[in-house]
Amino acid sequence: MAKVFLPKGTRDLMPATMNHRLAVMEIIRKVFSKYGFEPMETPAFERIETLTGKAGENEKLMFRILKRGEGGLRGEVDQGLRYDLTVPLARVVAMNPSIPLPFKRSQIQPVWRADRPQKGRFREFYQCDIDTIGTSSPIADAECIAVVHDALMALGLTGFTIRVNHRQLLRSMAESIGAAEHETTVIQALDKLDKVGRGGVQKELIERGLDASQCAKLWTYIDGAPIPGGAESERELKTILDLALDMGVDADRVCIDRTLARGLDYYTGPVFEAVLEGDYTGSISGGGRYDGLIGMFSGKQDVPAVGISLGIERIFMLMDEMGLLPAIPTTTQVWVTIFSEDTRSASLEAATLMRSAGINVQVSTRTGKLAKQFKDANGRGVPYVLVCGPEEAAAGTVVLKNLSTGEQWTGPADQVAAQLL
Amino acid sequence: MAKVFLPKGTRDLMPATMNHRLAVMEIIRKVFSKYGFEPMETPAFERIETLTGKAGENEKLMFRILKRGEGGLRGEVDQGLRYDLTVPLARVVAMNPSIPLPFKRSQIQPVWRADRPQKGRFREFYQCDIDTIGTSSPIADAECIAVVHDALMALGLTGFTIRVNHRQLLRSMAESIGAAEHETTVIQALDKLDKVGRGGVQKELIERGLDASQCAKLWTYIDGAPIPGGAESERELKTILDLALDMGVDADRVCIDRTLARGLDYYTGPVFEAVLEGDYTGSISGGGRYDGLIGMFSGKQDVPAVGISLGIERIFMLMDEMGLLPAIPTTTQVWVTIFSEDTRSASLEAATLMRSAGINVQVSTRTGKLAKQFKDANGRGVPYVLVCGPEEAAAGTVVLKNLSTGEQWTGPADQVAAQLL
Repeated sequence: MAKVFLPKGTRDLMPATMNHRLAVMEIIRKVFSKYGFEPMETPAFERIETLTGKAGENEKLMFRILKRGEGGLRGEVDQGLRYDLTVPLARVVAMNPSIPLPFKRSQIQPVWRADRPQKGRFREFYQCDIDTIGTSSPIADAECIAVVHDALMALGLTGFTIRVNHRQLLRSMAESIGAAEHETTVIQALDKLDKVGRGGVQKELIERGLDASQCAKLWTYIDGAPIPGGAESERELKTILDLALDMGVDADRVCIDRTLARGLDYYTGPVFEAVLEGDYTGSISGGGRYDGLIGMFSGKQDVPAVGISLGIERIFMLMDEMGLLPAIPTTTQVWVTIFSEDTRSASLEAATLMRSAGINVQVSTRTGKLAKQFKDANGRGVPYVLVCGPEEAAAGTVVLKNLSTGEQWTGPADQVAAQLL
Repeated sequence: MAKVFLPKGTRDLMPATMNHRLAVMEIIRKVFSKYGFEPMETPAFERIETLTGKAGENEKLMFRILKRGEGGLRGEVDQGLRYDLTVPLARVVAMNPSIPLPFKRSQIQPVWRADRPQKGRFREFYQCDIDTIGTSSPIADAECIAVVHDALMALGLTGFTIRVNHRQLLRSMAESIGAAEHETTVIQALDKLDKVGRGGVQKELIERGLDASQCAKLWTYIDGAPIPGGAESERELKTILDLALDMGVDADRVCIDRTLARGLDYYTGPVFEAVLEGDYTGSISGGGRYDGLIGMFSGKQDVPAVGISLGIERIFMLMDEMGLLPAIPTTTQVWVTIFSEDTRSASLEAATLMRSAGINVQVSTRTGKLAKQFKDANGRGVPYVLVCGPEEAAAGTVVLKNLSTGEQWTGPADQVAAQLL
């Protein structure tokens, strides 16, 4: 037998999984639309020049595509699969200078990274982003928080906290402890606080050249002491939080966290992160303001931009683990059996009536031996079977049976269909 | 200014287009579900061995991906982007021998072909397939016809005909005119009948070695004379059409067409094609039974399989041209203006109430100068604006205005929201 395999680090999304994912994405899309974020898609690949312009650490993880024709035979590459949705967004903004601003788009598409595959980590995975391009209004920042809040609430992932911080506050803290040149060190160390605790952070800082008194001062800021030079950023965060509360965000689910850093070279202002309470480490959403990046292709210095990414693969996984979405092994509601060739037409007509009533129906391709047909239905998780034997066919009726309760109804197909609506 | 470009032959799907496409896909998905076809997705790329096994003519159109690491530096290739949805399906079936049969899946995903780009023809485009694997039942064939019928009706593309033929009938015709060894020639020539007429087909046949009396005999079969050895295939088609009518297919929209070939080496039994009436050349859907292909990875001789592909890119284009789907420049219904900083909270709270009522709202990031904010809304096609000035804020009311009619309502936000539901 010929052997075939999936490419390393990839997976097929079979119907039971897809039903689940489509339902989750539909919920998220609705929230995005409520805030005016409209769907966009970009090609799977980009020109290699586009991807390597700003790719940095992702460049070695990129899947490269050979040129077609002669060049490809020589190993020349002209395109690569996208590794995020932000580079394509920056390209779209640069190529469409007349697009009305602010441009608010959502994008739910796969990206590809030639990462070492791990449990729950794939080389093809979906990202789910919203971004507002072209305004510095704090409303845009607040909407990021509100969208994450509303999406997680709508999904039933209600035990979350959205942490908020400002990159300028981190800079001011580093300056105030006399470690301006160590800003990156401080941010990187603080980023690990959740994992290693204050002791671990302090150890790292001291190894990297800070002293104990600098660390002590840092902890006072983390604990809430006023940060010299930080007043404006604090006010900005306060405004954003107030606006988010106006948008219906629950005050208990959002907090300022002076340790939040969200990576390094990208964000220029407020940063956000959503974490679940309990034993779930890592964030399920993150984002912030990044006024320097979008202009990279347009040649403009600063194009204001703010966005968040919902960790949709993680959300699928967690919801599955937490039993938050009922498993959807099948969306088929009724398995229409075929009693015999003679009654086949009657069964098909009943199936047609049920479909017209809005019901999802699968017709058995097996004829006779009803027990086997019931087993087919049961094995796939289809809740109801429909039987149309000679008597029913003659009377113009069908029998609809609930496979788990055994309850059954007899009557014309369109009438028994009403049981399911 | 830095210049950026799209990869050759690709396009961005901007929000107005995406809103349209998502609506069409949703309609199609619903029809698929009604017949028990459930969604599946496979990775964008496959191992090169998988793709080249049966790729044939598509192989030179394939986008090849370089190995990561050392091999890639030497120009080695290990993966390619999928160029259809059938090869991945065959791989899935081979890798999942315990999957319950019949396996009915739908798949709506992009494929990639390094074709010469032309108007309306892209290197990345969506395919939209349903297939039933593992049954020879004519119900499965009939469902292909019924799904295409129901999908086109649901989309409002009602002026169509579904043509049906049987590969065995074409073979019998070739045999009966004494051109068994020319079967492929006959099929290829007949495939062009729509374009070149009988004269053109006959010219080609004669150039390829048939004589005039053979052609004359062929035309009698095309015109309906009984085809020796064709009775069984005729009966099979008749059964499939009867079943399709039981499923609610309109008899006027389906016909047997003895000239229909649908390409060459793939189909083994019934073939289907949907064409639009009028000046629309080419098909908008095609498919058939292909019992030899799916087994290619499983090492099984014959795995019965039948499916159809909806030409979804063509459908998007035609529906757009025909004005069949109202353009959806935006899904935002209400543009919430900000009168001043003082009333901003009141405006945001009104926006929140509207969202809670299920309305899609975009909040202006501009403050003051209402005329400009109205213009923003109008320019994007948002039909309503909401205003909350100092008086309204004090009274707990808002003004909702229809931008095209000028009509307006004043009242609490949740009450005026009712105007839009």
